[in-house]
Amino acid sequence: MGFNLSKSLEILERTPDVLITMLQSISTDWTSNNEGGETWSVYDIVGHLIEGEKTDWIPRMEIILSDKLEKTFEPFDRFAQFEGSKEKSLTQLLDEFKRLRKKNIDHLLSKKLTEQNIEEKGIHPAFGEITLSQLLSTWTVHDLNHIAQISRVMAKQYKANVGPWVEYLKILQV
Amino acid sequence: MGFNLSKSLEILERTPDVLITMLQSISTDWTSNNEGGETWSVYDIVGHLIEGEKTDWIPRMEIILSDKLEKTFEPFDRFAQFEGSKEKSLTQLLDEFKRLRKKNIDHLLSKKLTEQNIEEKGIHPAFGEITLSQLLSTWTVHDLNHIAQISRVMAKQYKANVGPWVEYLKILQV
Repeated sequence: MGFNLSKSLEILERTPDVLITMLQSISTDWTSNNEGGETWSVYDIVGHLIEGEKTDWIPRMEIILSDKLEKTFEPFDRFAQFEGSKEKSLTQLLDEFKRLRKKNIDHLLSKKLTEQNIEEKGIHPAFGEITLSQLLSTWTVHDLNHIAQISRVMAKQYKANVGPWVEYLKILQV
Repeated sequence: MGFNLSKSLEILERTPDVLITMLQSISTDWTSNNEGGETWSVYDIVGHLIEGEKTDWIPRMEIILSDKLEKTFEPFDRFAQFEGSKEKSLTQLLDEFKRLRKKNIDHLLSKKLTEQNIEEKGIHPAFGEITLSQLLSTWTVHDLNHIAQISRVMAKQYKANVGPWVEYLKILQV
């Protein structure tokens, strides 16, 4: 399917509640451990989603839609959550993500984007020219990417317990 | 972490509501298409989860806990959903999965499993001896595996729309 704003919103609107349903009040064994080394825990991933709401998707949309001549995005800081989430509980992060996402969707809808708007362009620091529809599509897929990652990080906490079934469970092999 | 029944239940109890939150009333563009070839759509995956509730986890637990001498499991039919889901809507499948999962968890709890019970064994047709704790751990990871798969199948529907960001989105590369 091609880019479609209302179909993107079907994903973007649901993600906070999907994460709350998966994670609210669950044992920290599932959420505070990572996949080893410098990988992220569920807690880190939720923090990363919050940083995206604050500094990535909507600020980049604003640059694309602005009248500025210079439309290069700020690079996104993939590690900002280690500072931003400090001393917050997972429940607080989930609430913050839900609140920011709602505000961002309301803001997006207030723009009443036209077919022409979604083909407007900005400059990505690594990729060069990208369109607003590519940015909004990426925002959508990014949610699904991190729901899958959260599922995988949680699954890995049980890897030692499944015995020979590890062979059938692809999620434990990546 | 080692196997822990209450921590497994934290996942098993939530999965139907996670899927309902993700999928209820969403456009069929997200749920009726697959990843190409013989891969499964979201609709197929929900059907597969239902078949697991009917013929896999609890029937195998019953074999392990039984007094039978012959404790070999029936092979699980990975394609049964193509018959079992026929003519049902996704909403019907989600409701059916939720109902069966609730019934199965109630049944599991009614067993009041002891430390000794969870080390009892059955015979897997391919792997040989496995324990009840391995079966219940696999049930848990299997849920997370399919939540990740559903996220990936949905993400793939948008692959053509993200432009150069495909490089940063691991979910589109598997």
